[in-house]
Amino acid sequence: GRAEMGIFKNNAAFQAAKGNPVTEVGAQFFTDIDVTFTMSGETDNGLTFGASVDLDEGGNQAATKNNSDDGGATIFISGGFGTVTMGDTDGALDWALTDAGNVGNPGSLADDETTHAGYNGAYLDGGNDGQILRWDYTSGAFGVAVSLEDDNGSNAVNTGIGYAIGFKYALDLSGTTVNFGLGHQRAADGAPGTATDAKATGVSVSATFANGLAAGIEYTDMTNSVFDKHIGVGLGYTTGAFSIHANYGKYDGVVAANDQKGYGLAAAYDLGGGAVVHFGYGSGKVGAGVSQKSMSLGLGLSF
Amino acid sequence: GRAEMGIFKNNAAFQAAKGNPVTEVGAQFFTDIDVTFTMSGETDNGLTFGASVDLDEGGNQAATKNNSDDGGATIFISGGFGTVTMGDTDGALDWALTDAGNVGNPGSLADDETTHAGYNGAYLDGGNDGQILRWDYTSGAFGVAVSLEDDNGSNAVNTGIGYAIGFKYALDLSGTTVNFGLGHQRAADGAPGTATDAKATGVSVSATFANGLAAGIEYTDMTNSVFDKHIGVGLGYTTGAFSIHANYGKYDGVVAANDQKGYGLAAAYDLGGGAVVHFGYGSGKVGAGVSQKSMSLGLGLSF
Amino acid sequence: GRAEMGIFKNNAAFQAAKGNPVTEVGAQFFTDIDVTFTMSGETDNGLTFGASVDLDEGGNQAATKNNSDDGGATIFISGGFGTVTMGDTDGALDWALTDAGNVGNPGSLADDETTHAGYNGAYLDGGNDGQILRWDYTSGAFGVAVSLEDDNGSNAVNTGIGYAIGFKYALDLSGTTVNFGLGHQRAADGAPGTATDAKATGVSVSATFANGLAAGIEYTDMTNSVFDKHIGVGLGYTTGAFSIHANYGKYDGVVAANDQKGYGLAAAYDLGGGAVVHFGYGSGKVGAGVSQKSMSLGLGLSF
Repeated sequence: GRAEMGIFKNNAAFQAAKGNPVTEVGAQFFTDIDVTFTMSGETDNGLTFGASVDLDEGGNQAATKNNSDDGGATIFISGGFGTVTMGDTDGALDWALTDAGNVGNPGSLADDETTHAGYNGAYLDGGNDGQILRWDYTSGAFGVAVSLEDDNGSNAVNTGIGYAIGFKYALDLSGTTVNFGLGHQRAADGAPGTATDAKATGVSVSATFANGLAAGIEYTDMTNSVFDKHIGVGLGYTTGAFSIHANYGKYDGVVAANDQKGYGLAAAYDLGGGAVVHFGYGSGKVGAGVSQKSMSLGLGLSF
Repeated sequence: GRAEMGIFKNNAAFQAAKGNPVTEVGAQFFTDIDVTFTMSGETDNGLTFGASVDLDEGGNQAATKNNSDDGGATIFISGGFGTVTMGDTDGALDWALTDAGNVGNPGSLADDETTHAGYNGAYLDGGNDGQILRWDYTSGAFGVAVSLEDDNGSNAVNTGIGYAIGFKYALDLSGTTVNFGLGHQRAADGAPGTATDAKATGVSVSATFANGLAAGIEYTDMTNSVFDKHIGVGLGYTTGAFSIHANYGKYDGVVAANDQKGYGLAAAYDLGGGAVVHFGYGSGKVGAGVSQKSMSLGLGLSF
Repeated sequence: GRAEMGIFKNNAAFQAAKGNPVTEVGAQFFTDIDVTFTMSGETDNGLTFGASVDLDEGGNQAATKNNSDDGGATIFISGGFGTVTMGDTDGALDWALTDAGNVGNPGSLADDETTHAGYNGAYLDGGNDGQILRWDYTSGAFGVAVSLEDDNGSNAVNTGIGYAIGFKYALDLSGTTVNFGLGHQRAADGAPGTATDAKATGVSVSATFANGLAAGIEYTDMTNSVFDKHIGVGLGYTTGAFSIHANYGKYDGVVAANDQKGYGLAAAYDLGGGAVVHFGYGSGKVGAGVSQKSMSLGLGLSF
């Protein structure tokens, strides 16, 4: 489980972008709690399997009530053939790439550093309802994955499933591992679908060095989208109990009004035993709009 | 806990009958997850007690928020006097009878085999909100139960509580146990109630043979209902890791348009350790309507 | 966890006051279930921390989904500086005072004895959404607490945070401990706020005697409220497995129509092992209105 307490503060442009009351721009209390149920087992011939779901995905939520939506639950079975995962999991493109925010990022209470307007984290996952089936297989330094996102069995015109394929390679350069990722994805359609499905091709390179520094870059080219391409860079540094991270991202729109960019910062001090002091900040803007800013500060407790 | 992943497919008539989008008739992903919390204890003088509730009955659901509705929770206390159970439990008629789908049925992901139009599984339980109080007592081969379903304290005209009584007998015939069930039930009223409450009298006979075959039949006579009677038959067979089940059921309506019938199939292959491959199929029709069909296939994981 | 089963009965005036159907005035079944997840840990330098949340606060509830509302979750960190608690916790006035219903009260299924119109249990906590930050420190017989309830960062006119301060003292009188409590509170504002915030100042004295008797009295003076003052008295008695409690409370309104008064009774018989038979009764009235009555009887099971 995990619990977080602290304060957070958003500016009016951020509140408006998220659909929150724009009058609530002062610092306010932040509390969040997460209880995760993880289950696992093994078949007679040695396949391992498991599932996980959070407390907030119970009740009337889709994880437990709607079988055609994952609702946040993840289920897998694993063996010599690799691992098959179904539910709320990454598509193969997201699986292969290292996002800018995954480079030495200690996290924050409100995820400010990965929710700014320039951040790209899920690629084309979630084109329909995000219920994904992925096979992945790793052999030594090389990994491959293929994934499908369904269209809820729709027979409406132009509606189809989405797919992705991804590759990973870990190159050992005299003790430093450089991780390469490459993938391609076509988005799943909701109903009614579109004749020209959005597609994305992405590549990422990242590395963590012995001196505590981590660096990464990720580039995505998109077609049939309001965006032409996205670039993201991330840096992280850890020394003792202290960690800091920064990332920058930019979407080039097909027209200037669709441009989006932003940056995020996260810093953390580890008190040990699962208690960490977190600070997060994000700033982004859409087209010529006002900058959207958010901040959070407080204690993250892992159990 | 339990997790299920696979695919399912319904035809348009099934989708319409369940109120789902009739365009979603292709095969689609199926994920479901269930976390059950079971609690138990014992008093100083040896009474045992316990309760259980599922993750999906938490949140804003009635199990935890509405004290006048069970919401899926079950609570019991047990001793020399028998067992008193309150909540989401079977009425005494359902307790006594063995449904056609409970005869050697390995189950399926979407319960296709027990949700077709000809299936009778709950008798008159749920006339009000399904919050049931049942006392049952077993002595040797003989069992008896009495149950009440309340009317939420309503004083609206013609609204009253429901009751049921049931008997079980297990007859030993040279090593094979033949289970007999008999019971009678009056439905609880919602508000406003009806002057002529629905009633049901049912009987069932079932047996499991040494060669892995199981067979059962159940008959219910109804009054003050749109149905006159119901008959259900079930067969099951298990050999090694493989199990198969079939059932057929038919409601005779008081007019022909109320007739309902259908059949269900379930097959399973046990991988051991709680992992089972499941297939389920159901087909049923109401009056002269189009057949409603549903199918599911996948992996059921028990933890 | 905890489960409760039994019956309850409300009169029409009680049902109307709670917004329930006024026709549901007969005895009806009562079932409730509670699963609490408690987590704890310790930092490297010896601070302890923890969090708790209930199953009914999962799903789509605010504890897990809305970071600006506690939703029933509580999070704390504790060390030589005292304890800092955030979330669904008592404000410092409520922390300091012993309510009439906390004097030797064994509880009941429906909390009838502490929900009558004359009962004061939360003081001005919850003026906004009840998300409270409290620091408390105890040294020997003396305790102090300060708390804040936020206004969700609102910059609407007259909207402000609430605060409270409270003191406890435990006086040892030849073996009997007499507990004194004193505190002051200003209510938090929702949006839009009020220029004249409600305030309360309260004092309580309570003691538990060696013969099983407990007694307490609590007095609160209010300003900028529909009430002028409140007084509550509570008595409890325990002998062997049997406990009984009674309390009386009265609000003096600023006009007679705002007067509220009532009394509550609770009795319990402990079966051991966590199973307790409970009876509860409450009766109260608002102004010259009809008495609102409620009753519950049944089994409470703690696990």
